[in-house]
Amino acid sequence: MRLSRYFLPVLKETPSEAQIVSHRLMLRAGMIKQAQAGIYSWLPLGYKVLKKIENIVHEEQQRAGHIPLLMPTLQSADLWRESGRYEAYGEEMLRITDRHGRDMLYGPTNEELITDIFRSYVRSYKDLPLTLYHIQWKFRDEVRPRFGVMRGREFLMKDGYNFDLTKEDALHAYNRHLVSYLRTYERMGLQAIPMRADGGPIGGDYTHEFLVLAETGESEVFYDSEITDLKFGTRDIDYDSVEECQSVLEEFTSRYARTDETHDEALFGEIPEERRRTARGIEVGQIFYFGTKYSDAMNAVVQDHSGAQVPVHMGSHGIGVSRLLGAIIEASHDDKGIIWPEGVTPFHCGIINLKQGDAEADAACEAIYLDLVKSGLEPLYDDTDERAGGKFATMDLIGLPWRITVGPRGLKNGVVELTSRRTGESEEMPPEQAVERIRQIYANH
Amino acid sequence: MRLSRYFLPVLKETPSEAQIVSHRLMLRAGMIKQAQAGIYSWLPLGYKVLKKIENIVHEEQQRAGHIPLLMPTLQSADLWRESGRYEAYGEEMLRITDRHGRDMLYGPTNEELITDIFRSYVRSYKDLPLTLYHIQWKFRDEVRPRFGVMRGREFLMKDGYNFDLTKEDALHAYNRHLVSYLRTYERMGLQAIPMRADGGPIGGDYTHEFLVLAETGESEVFYDSEITDLKFGTRDIDYDSVEECQSVLEEFTSRYARTDETHDEALFGEIPEERRRTARGIEVGQIFYFGTKYSDAMNAVVQDHSGAQVPVHMGSHGIGVSRLLGAIIEASHDDKGIIWPEGVTPFHCGIINLKQGDAEADAACEAIYLDLVKSGLEPLYDDTDERAGGKFATMDLIGLPWRITVGPRGLKNGVVELTSRRTGESEEMPPEQAVERIRQIYANH
Repeated sequence: MRLSRYFLPVLKETPSEAQIVSHRLMLRAGMIKQAQAGIYSWLPLGYKVLKKIENIVHEEQQRAGHIPLLMPTLQSADLWRESGRYEAYGEEMLRITDRHGRDMLYGPTNEELITDIFRSYVRSYKDLPLTLYHIQWKFRDEVRPRFGVMRGREFLMKDGYNFDLTKEDALHAYNRHLVSYLRTYERMGLQAIPMRADGGPIGGDYTHEFLVLAETGESEVFYDSEITDLKFGTRDIDYDSVEECQSVLEEFTSRYARTDETHDEALFGEIPEERRRTARGIEVGQIFYFGTKYSDAMNAVVQDHSGAQVPVHMGSHGIGVSRLLGAIIEASHDDKGIIWPEGVTPFHCGIINLKQGDAEADAACEAIYLDLVKSGLEPLYDDTDERAGGKFATMDLIGLPWRITVGPRGLKNGVVELTSRRTGESEEMPPEQAVERIRQIYANH
Repeated sequence: MRLSRYFLPVLKETPSEAQIVSHRLMLRAGMIKQAQAGIYSWLPLGYKVLKKIENIVHEEQQRAGHIPLLMPTLQSADLWRESGRYEAYGEEMLRITDRHGRDMLYGPTNEELITDIFRSYVRSYKDLPLTLYHIQWKFRDEVRPRFGVMRGREFLMKDGYNFDLTKEDALHAYNRHLVSYLRTYERMGLQAIPMRADGGPIGGDYTHEFLVLAETGESEVFYDSEITDLKFGTRDIDYDSVEECQSVLEEFTSRYARTDETHDEALFGEIPEERRRTARGIEVGQIFYFGTKYSDAMNAVVQDHSGAQVPVHMGSHGIGVSRLLGAIIEASHDDKGIIWPEGVTPFHCGIINLKQGDAEADAACEAIYLDLVKSGLEPLYDDTDERAGGKFATMDLIGLPWRITVGPRGLKNGVVELTSRRTGESEEMPPEQAVERIRQIYANH
């Protein structure tokens, strides 16, 4: 993309309404614009990152064998009356009446609707196991929406639901989700720690939250420092294997890691003192096994091997897709701006032309740009007339992990500069070599 | 995808509520399930086609230089009061009140919100031309929703908005949209004819609707038969070129083609009688130039070359993404089911194993399956225990354009059968050759 043809409305001033750094940086980098309290338009740069995150979630869900569909944003109140949650949900549910006076609501979650889909079609244990998921906009009418996309009202979430014949099968689905979530977050450059959590309004005895450590996190967390040494890495998991998934779960949950909701001071005290950590964390996902809570209430039964009608065992599993942008920025920025991990960066590489209009510099930038595009990469080429200082400031603010700087002086010596946003280190090299380096960096992303 | 692990709830019975063939077939093929009147869940097969269509729209919009973003589904009533449309829009607008008593609405379209984004950031003619678009769920509270996704209440639409300094520039944007729409529809296997239309509530003197001819279309259309001979084809258009876009517009709009709303019997009578056609059509898109209607009302101005503040010239341009599924099926089906054009088919090829459990047949199917996957294609392998007749009926119903049939008898002679869904013609050939043929077919899709 050539910046002169893009829409990147960066702000020079820090917006006064933003209290935390991710909110400030998303506004300043021209990623979002508030439409109303807790409701945002995703400007082109923000939309690009949102899509990258969404794609990673889709890929990892499907790798685990989960099947995508899409439920609507608006739901009928009747289904929620059936589960008993219509009255129970409280004021966070946005209730709507249509022109015929029918009660509807903007879905805050989808247990009822997916259970209705399931019971309409599935009759036999032979059609199990089954995990369906979607990535769709949700609405929760927060009293005080704040922190930008971290606590918005209209937000994008992946929610998945498993249907299994037995508790044992459902716990395998639970473990499978835990494993796939670990992999999902790592691809985004995040370390998200599974912590024992509280069931809350969705219910459930088995539940883990995934938390990203960050000073601005909304939860206080307590953990054994050994847990931050764990990496999922490139291991190849057979998601059908009960043993493999179980062993990953054990590896990642056997050390102490809890939020303030489930914190147990006595257990925490048993960890050697030098490994005890207290910090703050941002919740970016949660998994639940809740048994037959919804299948009982909504009569979602299948025939088992003996011919009996039995309620299915279910769980639900969520990833906060839009909130992840905030979490990634909270975990990865400096005083100049955002530092995108390679897996989610909106553009793979920035190109800065130090002397727009200089024939040689222009030609060199064009060649680098086209070379990168030909390799299937998306560079952002700042081809505007802005001063060099302004170009650097914008690139640092929007946080592309790599930058190629091209100027007449370097070109005389046959070199351009390749700079890492994270370390700030620069290296001079011929243009072709810089392109090749970028290509290699992204070969595994 | 192996069918045994997929969720494809096909129906044997024809649902009684469905009046038109696309609605019937989408229900029977397990593509959609009604959640409430005019609101659908997109089951896995339907969701896959929806995504394919969405991707084509994205690709063609970006090819034309238009920039994606994403506005929220819920909008503030205040912006609509500013444009004067809040009261004017009538009962089709779904009005919502949040917990603090603030008036909101579920966006039926986005002229106000995009104009607000534009005026917040853009100050100078130097930032023009600019065309922003999004693909987002909309809601129109139709009195009598019907015909499945063809006239739903919650529907997915691409809506794009151009901002230009002059009427002349804005008309180039209009033409650019017309050209890109022709290309978009052809990639989906559709012939959509641009017809002179009526401005309606969005306003505008320049407007064309794109109509797909189909017996069940909601509009009566009148056209010169020469128009159906026009093909956009593989021509390579420079979307920046005023002349190239203008000449395509002239080619595709100089012959008579109108809906009943703008039909002129006298003009129609001037066409030689043998070329006069009356038919029915489905609207799948519309483009508008409406000048400064919204920029005047909402004060969206830029500084021009002379330093004066002038309102921008705008247009809006929509493609009915979810409705396109219905339109494609209306235009492409037979009495056995859907016939997907290659560009939008949910799976590239079906594989039918005539004797599941036969070692040789199973192995041959697996090999074909893995070969296709390795080529980046998505086959649907019916690996279930269903009888051959049932397998054929399902494949015909869901309409994959190509099918490879594998059975012990053919394998003895070293062959499988490759069948075209459209023509019904079958050809025997070695398995590798069948895979190669499928690969070639999709090389250009």
